Amino acid sequence: MEPLILHEDPRSGNCYKIRLTAGHLDIPIKRKRYDVMRGETRTPEFLETINANGKIPVLQLGDRYMPESNAACYLLATGSDLIPDDRFDHADMLRWMFWEQHKHEPTIAEMRFFYLYVGKDNLSDKQRDAIPDKLAGGEAALTLMDGHLGSRDFMLGDQFTLADIALYAYTHVAEEGEFDLSRWPAVKRWLDRVASLPGHVEMEV
Amino acid sequence: MEPLILHEDPRSGNCYKIRLTAGHLDIPIKRKRYDVMRGETRTPEFLETINANGKIPVLQLGDRYMPESNAACYLLATGSDLIPDDRFDHADMLRWMFWEQHKHEPTIAEMRFFYLYVGKDNLSDKQRDAIPDKLAGGEAALTLMDGHLGSRDFMLGDQFTLADIALYAYTHVAEEGEFDLSRWPAVKRWLDRVASLPGHVEMEV
Repeated sequence: MEPLILHEDPRSGNCYKIRLTAGHLDIPIKRKRYDVMRGETRTPEFLETINANGKIPVLQLGDRYMPESNAACYLLATGSDLIPDDRFDHADMLRWMFWEQHKHEPTIAEMRFFYLYVGKDNLSDKQRDAIPDKLAGGEAALTLMDGHLGSRDFMLGDQFTLADIALYAYTHVAEEGEFDLSRWPAVKRWLDRVASLPGHVEMEV
Repeated sequence: MEPLILHEDPRSGNCYKIRLTAGHLDIPIKRKRYDVMRGETRTPEFLETINANGKIPVLQLGDRYMPESNAACYLLATGSDLIPDDRFDHADMLRWMFWEQHKHEPTIAEMRFFYLYVGKDNLSDKQRDAIPDKLAGGEAALTLMDGHLGSRDFMLGDQFTLADIALYAYTHVAEEGEFDLSRWPAVKRWLDRVASLPGHVEMEV
């Protein structure tokens, strides 16, 4: 593959997913840092060249750019053991990754964003009003995962896949969004299991 | 493949994506209808057997169940021309499908849900308060698509893929959520292009 550059904010779980995938695959990646709070992903140059959606992470391969964290992980992991061979399981892995973007990230990552990036005392009225729904949505997501992981080592069963990576990223720092993970013991055990795998890399906050 | 049953609400764009994929692939699917407004996807039986997340669509293959619309489309289309062979393009297709679930569906489909399912006069205060952000988010999503489609026939360029199907489903009925599509002419032309393809099937509202 061409030289890889990750356009990222190291505090972002979405960015961390890509580093975690690269860690498991032992793929070297250069990193370029942005501060989203200072609008660094909203400059005309960024929007024109890197991502018209104004978001990180973006994985750069030569002169091509892959936005959307889960798609960048997929690009890195194509052909590896992180993606199941079986047709149903392959789609089932994607199912959890779509669910992550629809139900897990918008609640759990957002709560963490409010507390870690914005700060409790600086929240706008709109952000404050959003908290009850985000909390309830995040709790529902963690409860669904806990039920699922009660009888499985990983999201797909025996095989560690991109579904685990996509969900690990924000789940393992959910307490920064004030989710008390002791309520979801199967999730806690799964977090430990993922963190103990060879190839694991830590988030850098 | 085993006999397929689509657990669906025919008004739902997420459900329609799966019928549209099956139409292009000429795969027959049985359909079982639910009314989400009457809690029919929240019964104990549904939650236990079909989808613990309480959502449709779910695509059933024999005794296995695939929730998440885009994953069900992917399962149907595996190995077909609706998914690019090229590694980068394959991930790029998924990139637009993740983006659809993160930025497009939560705004454009939600606005349509408010007006078509709930009804303008029946909106809760919380739903009414959410409208400005949902409108702005949907407009931003359509503007991004319009810029992208200005120089391309389909989301991936020349090839019609699942990215088009995933985005067509709610875009073509965005006016039911009071988005005036005449503002996005490249999107309008793309909608006509998709609708004129052989294998196209209509939504049934």
